[in-house]
Amino acid sequence: MTTNSGTKRRPVIVQKYGGSSLATAEHIQNVAKRIQARKDEGVDVIVVVSAMGDSTDDLIDLSQAVTGGQIPDAREMDTLLSTGELVSSTLMAMALKAHGYDAISLSGIQAGIKTDMVHGSARIADIKTERLHSELDKGRIVIVAGFQGLAESGDITTLGRGGSDTTAVALAIAAEAERCEIYTDVDGIYTTDPRLTSKARKLSEIGFQEMLEMAVLGAKMNPRSIELGAVYNMPVYVASSFSNEPGTLIHGGEHTMEVRKAVTGIAVDRNVGKITVRGVIDRPGVAAGLLQPLADAGVSVDVIVQNASSDGTTDFTFTVDEVNVEKASEVIGRDSKVEYAEIVTGSGLAKVSVVGTGMENTPGYAARMFSTLAEVGVNIDMITTSEIRITAIIGRDQVQNAVQALHDAFELEKTE
Amino acid sequence: MTTNSGTKRRPVIVQKYGGSSLATAEHIQNVAKRIQARKDEGVDVIVVVSAMGDSTDDLIDLSQAVTGGQIPDAREMDTLLSTGELVSSTLMAMALKAHGYDAISLSGIQAGIKTDMVHGSARIADIKTERLHSELDKGRIVIVAGFQGLAESGDITTLGRGGSDTTAVALAIAAEAERCEIYTDVDGIYTTDPRLTSKARKLSEIGFQEMLEMAVLGAKMNPRSIELGAVYNMPVYVASSFSNEPGTLIHGGEHTMEVRKAVTGIAVDRNVGKITVRGVIDRPGVAAGLLQPLADAGVSVDVIVQNASSDGTTDFTFTVDEVNVEKASEVIGRDSKVEYAEIVTGSGLAKVSVVGTGMENTPGYAARMFSTLAEVGVNIDMITTSEIRITAIIGRDQVQNAVQALHDAFELEKTE
Repeated sequence: MTTNSGTKRRPVIVQKYGGSSLATAEHIQNVAKRIQARKDEGVDVIVVVSAMGDSTDDLIDLSQAVTGGQIPDAREMDTLLSTGELVSSTLMAMALKAHGYDAISLSGIQAGIKTDMVHGSARIADIKTERLHSELDKGRIVIVAGFQGLAESGDITTLGRGGSDTTAVALAIAAEAERCEIYTDVDGIYTTDPRLTSKARKLSEIGFQEMLEMAVLGAKMNPRSIELGAVYNMPVYVASSFSNEPGTLIHGGEHTMEVRKAVTGIAVDRNVGKITVRGVIDRPGVAAGLLQPLADAGVSVDVIVQNASSDGTTDFTFTVDEVNVEKASEVIGRDSKVEYAEIVTGSGLAKVSVVGTGMENTPGYAARMFSTLAEVGVNIDMITTSEIRITAIIGRDQVQNAVQALHDAFELEKTE
Repeated sequence: MTTNSGTKRRPVIVQKYGGSSLATAEHIQNVAKRIQARKDEGVDVIVVVSAMGDSTDDLIDLSQAVTGGQIPDAREMDTLLSTGELVSSTLMAMALKAHGYDAISLSGIQAGIKTDMVHGSARIADIKTERLHSELDKGRIVIVAGFQGLAESGDITTLGRGGSDTTAVALAIAAEAERCEIYTDVDGIYTTDPRLTSKARKLSEIGFQEMLEMAVLGAKMNPRSIELGAVYNMPVYVASSFSNEPGTLIHGGEHTMEVRKAVTGIAVDRNVGKITVRGVIDRPGVAAGLLQPLADAGVSVDVIVQNASSDGTTDFTFTVDEVNVEKASEVIGRDSKVEYAEIVTGSGLAKVSVVGTGMENTPGYAARMFSTLAEVGVNIDMITTSEIRITAIIGRDQVQNAVQALHDAFELEKTE
């Protein structure tokens, strides 16, 4: 892929800046200075940008207005939304050139980003890096419009919520970058939500698997980009675009020099609703018979618990986003062929998860978690675990209480 | 080019809507209804759209802000500005689909519009109509983003001021349309500026050559699109997007059924400045020696007059846009190697032109023009003529007086 074969390529760094970091012309000029400083370190820099501030929401509002509230055509929507990142990428290239740095913007198409044809949530199929490398070889800073790609049909696609993070990690992998740096309005990954306890501590590093659990469970990161980083072992650095404070490095873990703590952090999701289907005749196919209609209706199910039964019936409980409780209940009542006695719904719940690769195959952590919650009077509604996570569903009004107690119990305020 | 060879293609109409016709979501919905009505007549419809309202100016302001007033990079500027038409084209396609009409937006790239590589004022080199025809053959209304194309380098180009008009006429030619309809905020072409005389009359038709003179001389139309229509004999219909009043058809002229009047209209340019270079040694190369430095400095020269001399010197006079008078004077003083006595500048001038193909090879029209102006006390500063035009440079404060008298003298208030 290199055009100067025989000579060693300079290290490549991919940076990504989110919309709140690019909200105004002044923001763009400030970010341009950060990019210049990185370039001055003697590395090749690829920058992925999101749309400026709320501009994507403004475009969505326009699409609602012209269609009179009908759902706009998905293909048109993708081309419409892709303009937001074209605007910010060209403005960033102009700002850099005005400061005397050679730079060029590339649309998703020009950057060689090929996707499947699922408008609104396309997946990257391939990245052709010829143009990227030829621009880097000219000494240019390359600014890539995030969130977008080109389907085989010649139509523009977008990657869905948080798509620019995915663009950045995918480009870092394709360009064999040293790492992908995500600059945003939060300054790193914390042991837990700092609004819940003043003892929350910023992590200097976290493993991909842990971060995936944290991301899925509510920490502010797009899980798809973490997953991509994990599969290709591309280190992802998360930091603030508004300060020079050190952020958090998400990485493969095996290179860690320090002794790891068993528990890395506590993830919280505060919008949990619950559906319990009581008196289900316990026979094979029951779970699928309940869950398939929900999948068909587009309702995501999260935690699933089935209690053993003695009288030949069973209770089947699962959680959904709180806004979907009524819809889920209706869908099962209408579409499921499974026999049951009654459906009970619950809301006002939250999910608290203790995450850490150190817990893997090590007993005692679940016991410590549940005894800690018992000591502070937190009632546990449901429990589910993975190899590196223990999750409890509790009342939402108990979340702060629970998180503070667990943060103390696992000594997360202390550095590794 | 047709995919259903053997069957006759339906008539194709190209419509173009300008930014003021698309300023808000409500405007877009109203224009969508006009497009639907045209489609319901049983023709295939291609629509070219400009950017919404002032959105292009907003993007230019942003580019100024991020570069701190420096001239932004031309390649980046083109991609930036091209987003305005992408937004309006996708919104229009959404609006039509929401009303139950099948429609699809195409970017300049997708519409097959190839240009040269002159960023900011690219010329269309070729249009590949395969995609256009295949979408029309599916019964779709095709909405094309105006003002933009693709250079061979893979970079986006824009066609300069009024570029969407050029896109529309070029697409009409390439798609072998019956005619190109330009909908705008004026309702047609008038015998002269209606602000100057209440007797100004809307023309139902005008020839390409006359329209070219009118356009160059100040009537609100992009001369490039007229020129293109003239070369390929593509009729261009200009009308209001806000009413159903009949507009003006610009056409090849030879099909005219009616008896033509000699004079079609009076064009006015109110911002004329003058440079006189006195005491120039009259030898070959003098004109080039004065004009080349101006061309190099990007100053457009309009009317040029050189007076004969008896003492071996001559006076050389030309007009420029009033804003360029000082610059032109400086450039000649600094860069020209021609010997002269002095440079005299003048401003506050205007250009009044009587236009009409009927004047061609017919004596008497110049005499009538100058005697009319003399009768109402208008002093003439310079005179220049073409085959179908007589132009007088006069004082700006005399314009209304002159236009009213000429409009009466040539009986332009009467229909053909």
